[in-house]
Formats: sequence, C-alpha cells, structure tokens
Amino acid sequence: MSKLAVCELISVGTEILLGDILNTDAQYLSIELAKLGISVIHQSTVGDNRERLLAQLDEAAKRSDIIILSGGLGPTPDDLTKEVCCEFFGKEMFLHEPTVEKIKEYFSSKGIEMAQNNLKQAMLPKDCVIFPNDNGTAPGMAIEKDGVHILVLPGPPRELKPMFQNCAVPYLMQFSDRIIVSHNIRTFGIGESSMAENVNDLFDAQNPTVAPYAKDGEALLRVTAMAKTKEDAESLCEPIIEEIKNRLDAYVYGVDYNCIEEAVVGMLKEHHLKVATAESCTGGLIAKRITDVPGASEVFECGIISYANGIKHKVLGVSEDDLNKYGAVSEPVAKQMAQGALKVSGADIAVSVTGIAGPDSDSTGKPVGLVYIGLADKENVWVRKIRTSRRDRSYNRYVSASNALDMIRLYIDNKL
Amino acid sequence: MSKLAVCELISVGTEILLGDILNTDAQYLSIELAKLGISVIHQSTVGDNRERLLAQLDEAAKRSDIIILSGGLGPTPDDLTKEVCCEFFGKEMFLHEPTVEKIKEYFSSKGIEMAQNNLKQAMLPKDCVIFPNDNGTAPGMAIEKDGVHILVLPGPPRELKPMFQNCAVPYLMQFSDRIIVSHNIRTFGIGESSMAENVNDLFDAQNPTVAPYAKDGEALLRVTAMAKTKEDAESLCEPIIEEIKNRLDAYVYGVDYNCIEEAVVGMLKEHHLKVATAESCTGGLIAKRITDVPGASEVFECGIISYANGIKHKVLGVSEDDLNKYGAVSEPVAKQMAQGALKVSGADIAVSVTGIAGPDSDSTGKPVGLVYIGLADKENVWVRKIRTSRRDRSYNRYVSASNALDMIRLYIDNKL
Repeated sequence: MSKLAVCELISVGTEILLGDILNTDAQYLSIELAKLGISVIHQSTVGDNRERLLAQLDEAAKRSDIIILSGGLGPTPDDLTKEVCCEFFGKEMFLHEPTVEKIKEYFSSKGIEMAQNNLKQAMLPKDCVIFPNDNGTAPGMAIEKDGVHILVLPGPPRELKPMFQNCAVPYLMQFSDRIIVSHNIRTFGIGESSMAENVNDLFDAQNPTVAPYAKDGEALLRVTAMAKTKEDAESLCEPIIEEIKNRLDAYVYGVDYNCIEEAVVGMLKEHHLKVATAESCTGGLIAKRITDVPGASEVFECGIISYANGIKHKVLGVSEDDLNKYGAVSEPVAKQMAQGALKVSGADIAVSVTGIAGPDSDSTGKPVGLVYIGLADKENVWVRKIRTSRRDRSYNRYVSASNALDMIRLYIDNKL
Repeated sequence: MSKLAVCELISVGTEILLGDILNTDAQYLSIELAKLGISVIHQSTVGDNRERLLAQLDEAAKRSDIIILSGGLGPTPDDLTKEVCCEFFGKEMFLHEPTVEKIKEYFSSKGIEMAQNNLKQAMLPKDCVIFPNDNGTAPGMAIEKDGVHILVLPGPPRELKPMFQNCAVPYLMQFSDRIIVSHNIRTFGIGESSMAENVNDLFDAQNPTVAPYAKDGEALLRVTAMAKTKEDAESLCEPIIEEIKNRLDAYVYGVDYNCIEEAVVGMLKEHHLKVATAESCTGGLIAKRITDVPGASEVFECGIISYANGIKHKVLGVSEDDLNKYGAVSEPVAKQMAQGALKVSGADIAVSVTGIAGPDSDSTGKPVGLVYIGLADKENVWVRKIRTSRRDRSYNRYVSASNALDMIRLYIDNKL
C-alpha cells in the first residue's frame, strides 16, 4: 500500500440526486481528509440503486486506494450501501450480537422499543473494522481487499462527523506519513486584492503555502504546512503567520476564529466590557450574531431595534429635529442612536446602525447600500460611513453588522 | 433521442475536491431538472485535470443523454472544461468575434480594460449553441454528438443560475414532454409523523404525489403533479392541496412560502397591524427574521433585546419581585415582557421570548430547551411554553423564534 494514498468519495442517496438534500458531507470529508494529507481525487453521488453503486465501486477501485461511502445505512430495504459493498468484495454478512445489543440500548435510552427492521443494521461481515455509532443506530465499517479500502459512514452529518473523527481518522492514519496543518488569518476592512498585494511574495512558497480567500465581505489568508508531525508543521506556519500579522497590522482581527463575532465576544470578556446595540436596517442582526456565541450574556446587555423613527426618538432619545433635518440614515442619527443605547442600557459601549439595506431605497431616495455605523462610550462617539455596491438586502445587512462588530474590536484595541 | 432523457452532472474544480467550496450548483441543477421532468441519475466532481475529465465524460456518455458540466470556464490555463469537452467530441474551436465584443463591453461597463487571457473565453466550436453570460465573462454552450448532449455552464452560482434559466431550460425543453409542478404546504406545531398520519391515504397516489418533509422544527407536505401543460399539472394539484389544508386546518400556515416569517409579514400587512418584539434568549433573532423580509418596515415597529434582568425591569417594566420569585425564564416574565414591549412601542401586538437556549443552563438550573413565548395585544396576553429535546443553542433559538412567529399568525387568524 502506497503511503501517499488517493481517496474518493461516493455519496449514496436518491434524495441528493433530487436536490432535496445539499451534500455537505462531501465538503466536510474533503476538508478533513486534506488535513490528514490524503488527496480526494473524485466525488460522486449515486441513487439507492444496486447496479449503479456496483458500477461506481468498480470505477473507484481502479483509481483509488481508499473509497469512502456515506449514506444508505438506514433500516429500510432501499438502504443498501453496506450490502452492496460486501457484495462487491465478495464478503458474507452475519448478525453481529454486540451491535444488536448496542442498538437495543440506544432505543431503550430513548424509551422506545427496537423495531425488527433495525436488526438489518447489525448485519456485518466477519473481518471488518466496526465503527460504532454514538448518535444513531447504524454502525459504520471499514473493509479491505487487495489493497483497496472501503469505509462506510452514515449520511446524517450529526452521525457522520463524530464517527469520522473517532473511528475513520484513526483507521486512515495508516495511509498518511504527513500531517497537514492550516491556519486562517482573518481580516476586516481590506479587500482581497489589496490584502494579496501586501503579501504577494509569500504566495510562491511551497511549505507552508499561503492562499487568499474572500467571503461575505471579509478577506482571509490560509497558511498551510505539511510535515511528519503536528509540531513540525506548526513550526513551519508560525513565522509566516507572524510576518503576515505584522504586514496587515490592524486589519487582522484574529487567527482561526470562525467569524468576527467570536473574536469580539472574546475580547469583550477579556476586558470585562458590556455592550449594547441600537439597530435600524440590520433589524437585530448584530445582537443575534453576538448572542450566537455561547456565553454572550456576560458581555451583552441590551439591544434596541428602532425600526420606526418614532422609536428612535422615544426610546433612544434621537432628536426629532435631526431626524427631520438629516433623515434617519445620517451621521447625527447614528451618533445619537449609539449614545441613546448607552444611556438606556448602562453598558460600557454601544454600537448603532442606520442605513438603506435595499432592495429599494426609502422615501428619501438615498442610495441602497449607504449605511452609518456608530460607536459610543461614556466620553466619545465615532461614526463610520460605508457604501456597498450591491442591492442585495441580505448582503448589505450582513456587512453592516460586520462593520459594527469591527468597530468594537478596533475600539478595544485603541485603533478606532 | 428518447423523450424521457436521463441526465448527469459533472462539477469541475479542484477547489470542490479540497472542500474549499460547497457544491450548491449540483443541488440547484438537480432541483431545476426535476421540475422539467428530467431525471438526474449521477453527480460527480473531478479536479481541473484533463485526463480525469475525459474519463468522466466517457463514463457519462455511456449512460446519459444529457451531461451538464459546471465550472472551469475561467480565463486561466487550468480552466479547461470547454476545451476538454470539445476534444472529447472531436470539435475544433475558433475565436468567436461577437463573444469577444460582448466580453469587451462587459469590462468597459465596469471601467476596466479586458486582459488578453480573457480571449480564451471567446473560443467556441462552430456548431455549438452559445449561452451568453450576463453576469460574467465566460459564455456557456451546448454541443451534441450521436445523440449525447453536453451543456457547459460557469461555476459561480450567480452566473450559473440565470444562464441555466435563460439558456439551458429552453434548450432542454426538447427532451421533455412533461411539466412538473410542485407545491409545498407548510405547517407549524405538528410533528412530521402526526402530520403524516393525518394524510396517510394520500401517500399512495402517483399523480400528484404527496411526500412529507421535516426541517428546522417544521413539517411540510410536497404535492407534485406531472402533465403536458402547466395548467393541467396545476389542476391535478389543486384538489389535493385543498383536501390537505382541510385536514391539517390550523397547523397550515401557507402554501409555497419560503419560511414562516414571510407568511407572517404578509398577514400583518394585510391586516394593517404593527408588531414589536421583546427577546431574551433569541437575542434579536425574531426581529432579524421579520426584517429579513423586504418591506418589513410597514409592520415592524421596534424590538427590545433584554438580555440582562436589569433591562427587563428598566426598559420593559417587568416586576423585580417576579424576576426574583419566578426567575427570568417563567410565564409571568414572558407575559410582562410582551406587555412592556407593547407599551414602549405603541404597536398593535408584541411577542416575547425568554428561555434557556443552551448549550448549558443558567444559574437557576432550569433545563436547556425550556422556553416561554408571550403575545400581548391591548386587552389580552397569551403564553406558550415549549420544551425542546436538544442542547443545540442554534436550534433552540431558531425554534423559539419560529414559535413566536407562529403565535402571531394564529393571533391574526383568531386561533390563538
């Protein structure tokens, strides 16, 4: 068996071919296999159909050392992945008593009796490696013949992911003499191309590699190193990450965060600061994103969604004259909204957003994508004006909320 | 050419095999092809690799009449989908001057000069059907040989979707003598299995078919009919939809809505009602979902996110005694939060949510998933208590918000 294994994925399920289900398993497995240094060269989806699955296994076994199948492990007759894989390798299946017990326990822990058709899920070939399922009834397995390894995993992501990590990864480690480590350096406020220009010379390196990505109004750099051990790979990444952080400076909000709200909640906790929000066009999205982060109650005090002008005045104390003179989407209103939220909540800082999310403008005719974002503390108030180029309501709301979150982290870092 | 064509999809792109991109194109195309009555029997993904793509085309041409490829139409040398498809069919490519002009115009409309490598995108075989691209530079195309049709589309969804609808659908209509029409009957407050029991006898029908689905705490029934014309298909669906609506009665919140907030905003508009929100554990999610719907400003007045107990008292007027006696997650507090939001906002109705979203409980030790949802108008106040079975913060928040939206639509229908 070559140490540089190539792998392919077969998803089984008519519901994927009908478009009823988005195939997120294939993406998850591809990302995780890349981390192990195992190349995925092919992905395919076939329906719950014996002949088509046999044909796909035949193709796959010609070009790949490892074939990972997902889906089709349910208790009904149209679930046939395990059966067809055993047929393909000429392996007989038997009722595996310990698995029967495990499935019975699973049901009794839920206070339900096991149906007879679940016994099908305990049928396994003699010489397989069993992957127990802690989140469902169908075990997975690995079987081997003539140097080709077939791994079978359940389709539902909440069963597939833990089984992959707990069972498939240890099994697959035999095929990898390399470990891949990746880190994402996340930025805000700089476009992908400007970011790339700053680090252009780093893109030619082979180990670690540096690659730019852009998504949802943010740009990030991924640093990826390959080595015999995790420690060696980390040592390769470290100086490059430091170099990038130095060059991009205040644009960098963190490394390996999933999103800016995660970074911001962490910083607020660390500095024992409480935040409040006053939102107009984002309609609760900033508060929603902050409170998505578990434990946000330590740092989030209160949010006011002042959609109507009357509420901006009555609840937040925005001057009626200024509302009439400058309009709701204006710098003075953004300032007063933030100051109002600070006063109502008693928090340490408050952010505000007022803008035109689209798809159409309001009665003032101000352009879609024009947004003012405010941040107030007990002494000062700052306003950032942005203008997106899209008429996309959802994008404009998201990017506006991200800018408010960005102002919070710059404030804490004294960089506002 | 058989009138009942079978189709398969090939996605081209190393970035999909690396997991950098989630393959949403395959799901989109599968759904749209099903609507045309064209069966997708296989999906695959190959990297930007000539040999592998040729091998996949060879496999595909053996079993499918229509092969739809997406991705790999960019201007760089590793973009090779069009070139390999022409090689596979033995078709020579030429520079297509009208396409050169179109690409030049595209750039000049953005104020940029066309780079020379974009000329590659204007290379096309002589006897193809060109699919113009209104959202990018790469045209798509359809070519045919010996009854096998290859369609080539760009990878980015914002280019692929309009090109599919505007160019590929008319091209594909030649292979379909049937039209498929689907309608989704959306319910809230009934589980998938209870819903299914009520309409069990309808599941055996062949045209229209009725199928149950469950997602994000909601159950829906999809009614799908096939006929020679859209009108005939609609006539087949209509009586079944009526029958289902009668049987499921108040559980049905609408047909063909994307989500309950869309239905609720529509109903509020129709009845000229304004709503306010008071949210604790949902942290702005109800307001965010209402204001996701364009035009929500007509019906949404104001939202208060009273995360801290002090804010529940100070801004919403919740009794401090009750907060101490019953805790924040309790029926009296849910009631007073809704009444407080009504008073602060001057809206016609207000909804409130207070609960334990998880993953962990708060200091009171009340169970994760326990949530109280209130609705107040000027005379009355109602409370719904729910208890989810999951420790999943995101799910619990979503389902709590959905329940608040459900109470609004039941209130408007006098069914609360």
